[in-house]
Amino acid sequence: MEPRASRFEARDCILKPVGGGRMSFSDENFLLQSEAARHLYRKYAADEPILDFHSHLSAKEIAENRRFGNLAEIWLEGDHYKWRAMRSNGVEEKYCTGNAPPFEKFMAWARTVPHTLRNPLYHWTHLELLRYFGVTRLLDEKSADEIWNQANSKLASGELTTQGILRKFGVRAVCTTDDPADSLEYHKKIQASGFATRVFPTFRPDRALRVEDAAAFNEWTGKLGASANVDIARLSDFLDALAKRHQFFHSMGGRCSDHGLDRAYSEPCTDREAEATFARARAGKEVTSDDATKFASYLMLHFGRLNAEKGWVMQLHLGAYRNANTRMYKALGRDVGFDCMGDTPQTTPLVRFLDMLDRDNRLPKTVLFNVNPVDNYAFATVIGSFQDGSIAGKMQFGTGWWFLDQKEGMEWQINALSNCGLLSRFVGMVTDSRSFMSFPRHEYFRRVLCNLVGADMDAGLLPDDEPLVGDMIRRIAFDNAYEYFGLPSVEGRAVAPAEHARARRM
Amino acid sequence: MEPRASRFEARDCILKPVGGGRMSFSDENFLLQSEAARHLYRKYAADEPILDFHSHLSAKEIAENRRFGNLAEIWLEGDHYKWRAMRSNGVEEKYCTGNAPPFEKFMAWARTVPHTLRNPLYHWTHLELLRYFGVTRLLDEKSADEIWNQANSKLASGELTTQGILRKFGVRAVCTTDDPADSLEYHKKIQASGFATRVFPTFRPDRALRVEDAAAFNEWTGKLGASANVDIARLSDFLDALAKRHQFFHSMGGRCSDHGLDRAYSEPCTDREAEATFARARAGKEVTSDDATKFASYLMLHFGRLNAEKGWVMQLHLGAYRNANTRMYKALGRDVGFDCMGDTPQTTPLVRFLDMLDRDNRLPKTVLFNVNPVDNYAFATVIGSFQDGSIAGKMQFGTGWWFLDQKEGMEWQINALSNCGLLSRFVGMVTDSRSFMSFPRHEYFRRVLCNLVGADMDAGLLPDDEPLVGDMIRRIAFDNAYEYFGLPSVEGRAVAPAEHARARRM
Amino acid sequence: MEPRASRFEARDCILKPVGGGRMSFSDENFLLQSEAARHLYRKYAADEPILDFHSHLSAKEIAENRRFGNLAEIWLEGDHYKWRAMRSNGVEEKYCTGNAPPFEKFMAWARTVPHTLRNPLYHWTHLELLRYFGVTRLLDEKSADEIWNQANSKLASGELTTQGILRKFGVRAVCTTDDPADSLEYHKKIQASGFATRVFPTFRPDRALRVEDAAAFNEWTGKLGASANVDIARLSDFLDALAKRHQFFHSMGGRCSDHGLDRAYSEPCTDREAEATFARARAGKEVTSDDATKFASYLMLHFGRLNAEKGWVMQLHLGAYRNANTRMYKALGRDVGFDCMGDTPQTTPLVRFLDMLDRDNRLPKTVLFNVNPVDNYAFATVIGSFQDGSIAGKMQFGTGWWFLDQKEGMEWQINALSNCGLLSRFVGMVTDSRSFMSFPRHEYFRRVLCNLVGADMDAGLLPDDEPLVGDMIRRIAFDNAYEYFGLPSVEGRAVAPAEHARARRM
Repeated sequence: MEPRASRFEARDCILKPVGGGRMSFSDENFLLQSEAARHLYRKYAADEPILDFHSHLSAKEIAENRRFGNLAEIWLEGDHYKWRAMRSNGVEEKYCTGNAPPFEKFMAWARTVPHTLRNPLYHWTHLELLRYFGVTRLLDEKSADEIWNQANSKLASGELTTQGILRKFGVRAVCTTDDPADSLEYHKKIQASGFATRVFPTFRPDRALRVEDAAAFNEWTGKLGASANVDIARLSDFLDALAKRHQFFHSMGGRCSDHGLDRAYSEPCTDREAEATFARARAGKEVTSDDATKFASYLMLHFGRLNAEKGWVMQLHLGAYRNANTRMYKALGRDVGFDCMGDTPQTTPLVRFLDMLDRDNRLPKTVLFNVNPVDNYAFATVIGSFQDGSIAGKMQFGTGWWFLDQKEGMEWQINALSNCGLLSRFVGMVTDSRSFMSFPRHEYFRRVLCNLVGADMDAGLLPDDEPLVGDMIRRIAFDNAYEYFGLPSVEGRAVAPAEHARARRM
Repeated sequence: MEPRASRFEARDCILKPVGGGRMSFSDENFLLQSEAARHLYRKYAADEPILDFHSHLSAKEIAENRRFGNLAEIWLEGDHYKWRAMRSNGVEEKYCTGNAPPFEKFMAWARTVPHTLRNPLYHWTHLELLRYFGVTRLLDEKSADEIWNQANSKLASGELTTQGILRKFGVRAVCTTDDPADSLEYHKKIQASGFATRVFPTFRPDRALRVEDAAAFNEWTGKLGASANVDIARLSDFLDALAKRHQFFHSMGGRCSDHGLDRAYSEPCTDREAEATFARARAGKEVTSDDATKFASYLMLHFGRLNAEKGWVMQLHLGAYRNANTRMYKALGRDVGFDCMGDTPQTTPLVRFLDMLDRDNRLPKTVLFNVNPVDNYAFATVIGSFQDGSIAGKMQFGTGWWFLDQKEGMEWQINALSNCGLLSRFVGMVTDSRSFMSFPRHEYFRRVLCNLVGADMDAGLLPDDEPLVGDMIRRIAFDNAYEYFGLPSVEGRAVAPAEHARARRM
Repeated sequence: MEPRASRFEARDCILKPVGGGRMSFSDENFLLQSEAARHLYRKYAADEPILDFHSHLSAKEIAENRRFGNLAEIWLEGDHYKWRAMRSNGVEEKYCTGNAPPFEKFMAWARTVPHTLRNPLYHWTHLELLRYFGVTRLLDEKSADEIWNQANSKLASGELTTQGILRKFGVRAVCTTDDPADSLEYHKKIQASGFATRVFPTFRPDRALRVEDAAAFNEWTGKLGASANVDIARLSDFLDALAKRHQFFHSMGGRCSDHGLDRAYSEPCTDREAEATFARARAGKEVTSDDATKFASYLMLHFGRLNAEKGWVMQLHLGAYRNANTRMYKALGRDVGFDCMGDTPQTTPLVRFLDMLDRDNRLPKTVLFNVNPVDNYAFATVIGSFQDGSIAGKMQFGTGWWFLDQKEGMEWQINALSNCGLLSRFVGMVTDSRSFMSFPRHEYFRRVLCNLVGADMDAGLLPDDEPLVGDMIRRIAFDNAYEYFGLPSVEGRAVAPAEHARARRM
């Protein structure tokens, strides 16, 4: 068992601090522009464990403790953020999603990096190279060879397997994102293995809503029925199968559902209407857009109530305009970097949806994520209208998501939540990532948070009371999420890393 | 007659200034982060009188010079901002709107306060405790007892009655918010008493628009008719009664109407259509949502024209999504903290409404308030399209309202107005509050304003010309509102406080 | 041939720098709040040439080398920004668009200027007075006489003719905005004259979309047909005439179309439907709003494809709510200062429009400009969904437009683009102005850009690598636009000004 490295022990810098109070890019004070910020970060944030309650990591790759062959494999594979930047820089598709050799892809990325100045990719790139591989040079065409070799030799050492990475970054728990019909076999394997980091599934039933594509819907319903051991003839069977899978996810330690929607669905839909729509789809007939929306509303209430019954958390990711580019969608499919922010009004359907659940006292704990920053303030006030005093921070406004997962976006979210709600009860950061290279984003978030709060202390906007303010930082870093999600068998922060690891092995 | 205390004479601090140029929370330089800001505030803002042109204070409580029994009574009663924070902190309803004993409610609040870091409540709380009761400790569970006693003994001294508070804060005039059917008996009593602070009614006819609830509409129309001494049979009677009450409010010194709407109403509606809708509602029949909207549009034009005729100011508060939580609305009613920001598009209906009035040259002076910050820039440009050169600043973009009544929200509003219009003509701050504890918000606003403008001076973005810049500050603090509203018998700032008080007594 | 003055050689200040690190308004470090910012500006931005790829300058006035009689003529004529400010300040219309004598208009403006503190007009005013006339006093009622005389005597010297101004500010190329039916006779004259600054037309076919006003449409179609030498009977003739004019603009060096729309149009419209709508309009019959929108969508695709064929750039200016004030529109017409921001959702129709072109691989290079800042982030992500790797920065998010053409607006645009795309590929600033006094806005933009980027260097958010960062600044200032637009016979920045001028004369 390797000892868990503190994320802060590597005090190496890309460029040494320069004189006159100026900071250097990626030194240990990166993003921490005041003494108060530095102090808060070091004392209350840097060494806190990670609870990554929303990610798109592959359970299979964790179970199999995947070893990555080279830097392109671990870093470029599936990373649509980088692909978008490369395309914007005039790089051909074969170097993005195409079949160019790994080193050529890496070189195309290396040539693009200097053009990402002020984009979060520039920060992520160098923070990741530093934390994973000890690279302290800026990546560009000239340094690419050296960095390629340095990273690959580190990968070859076997330290940075999927499990090695989770250990290295002190990840106490990670939640993946899973289809209800998924067997969760890899989750079982991980749990059986006694691996210290707990890995839980998240119930993501988006496909259950898509009755407009009857063929795909029926294929999926078949899988669902098989997984739940339910013969799905009528709507009640369908709901029953979903409930059984929800229960199964619960038995596997899952405590969250997750939903990726362009907006909340809250059109009133009777049982009879839902039954009729379901029957049409099952019969392979066309379903109108209106009927599909009503059906989606109906199912979302079903999921909300299942969550409420079991004390789960419902996560809503709202507002993305997916697959904006038809030509590329046809060529490459989903999740390859052709999505954008929508600007559909969110508040009214969202309030109605939450209200429909709340009327029966069946509104679960909920985290709202918006992709368009124009919704920040509205979302930060919507949660306030459904806080019912049952637990602190029952309704959450989630951290900056997707395009907002960067300094400006995080600051806006933190400020909106601060001004309209209780920052102190915030469950904090998630990677929401497909990549095992993304764990430094927790560090990034914590630095941004401490920088913002430290600046307030310096400006006299917060009391110069370190225990008071530091306690808030620490809770946002780990404790709030730990308490909020109630994931089984995860140790709290009080447990020291070594004990934690030992406990997990037993 | 107690002498009026300068809001700035208390130079006490919660925490003493610390070294190295850092400021301490709530010292005299609170929010003033540059020398220029401090200078502007002290010389041009701190001692200006207050003209609170929009509030929800109770005229009855002023007339009766209410004395508050304890800190819970003066501070927590009716304060839905605090209730929201408490619910978000997991506090049960009985400590918010419920029947827990006052001290227990206060303790629940005291325990919540440390969790409001970065929320405006944290600033307001300590500024209010300082300015009203001389409290210099931070409120939390440990300090609660001492602060409770200190405040209560100050309340017992009789200095902080409603009238005492208005005097203490140098409030030259305050406008309440009143139903057209209100007798204004307490306004009469106040005016008859010779109380130095002038208290004026504001005409708020929102209930006249609500034809969809025929029962409530008819009950209210009955009251309106009685108050106006008009037998309301037809629409023309209704309009006539409203006009008579408008005239009555004018005779009482009222110079504003106020309207709280989810959006501006500007659907074309003929006299005949309005008459038909009115007849249906009066007959207790159902009115469609479309007809109700047209009727509301019709009435809003009526109010706009009444205002234009008399030189009044029309205030529009736009965009709130009220009573978002049905369960709590049914349990507790309105204005208890279950509202949020809507995101309905505002600009098109608003422009149409203003344009309908302007076409006949009957657009009154208008102040637009938006609750969602996404509308800031649009609103700041809408006013520019209806400035007609008749008077400076005829169309106003109002200060940060409700959820925006905090540092970030105020700064956004000031910046939007600055960039798209003339900040120099801005009528400034209002408390918009139900609480007699809210007057330090004027101080808060002035500090935010001076901080922003002072920073610009320091950065060379404004000329280092103190009289030029200071004059703008002073006018925003008081003079602009004084000139704009033309409230009767209110002395200008040139009148010294003592003389002012004497004049009022005669 | 007068030598071209460096925009940065005049190191005079309105107020001298003061001690203690504070900057003075309009000194040489104006807007440059850090040493890094100053250095970037001086070395990489100040002396770069200008490529003003979108303006509303008059080709006639350039061709005729107009000399301005007085400061009112060159500065107030047609400037609706100033008129709006004056109206907001209570100035009568006769001093804005009316027939007051020039000096009285100037005095009305001079009295308004001190009320524009924090509005971009305050900065522009003094920067323009400084750069054109060497005026170092602040403009107000007292200084007005002196400034009037100083400016007029400079104008009388003949140095500041339209051509003199273009030379003075190092404008290598300027694109005007032109109707497809325009003969471009003045562009021909300019090109024939060998004037060093290249002046190109931009194809702006907004009138082709306005079938709802059949009379105006038919009048315009007549002109179009005449200019194209096409007898326009059917839709195909209309499209053909437009294509011929597009080709003619191309032959004149035009490389851009430009479109001012409340939103993108992307309603599906068959050839037959478009033909029917065209026929109705040509017959003088009424066209429904829906049909007009479909027709507009149809034509916009036509323009997009013409642009794609020829490698042009399509510029979309989206979201303005024009002629908001009917009374003033009837009295004064368009473009006189009664427009505002709309808040119609933009993203969905925009994505659909771009996608319709992209499906056939006929999406041209495109620059998106939004007038409402709420669209910043969405637009910055929309471009990313249509970057196809063909050239770097194919899809552009344009600089802050109209009400956003100021420090805060520019910073927001730069930040949105930085966070969601590649700032490094940005084509930068345009004046978008009717006034020959607007060229210092390029200086203003460059200072804002350098200030923002320099602050990041100082904060360690960018590497302290001057060549890396400086190269980005230089490209945004000129090179990116130079490469992107491919305007014919324009020299790159490597060509020194004198040689450049000589080359143009030959």
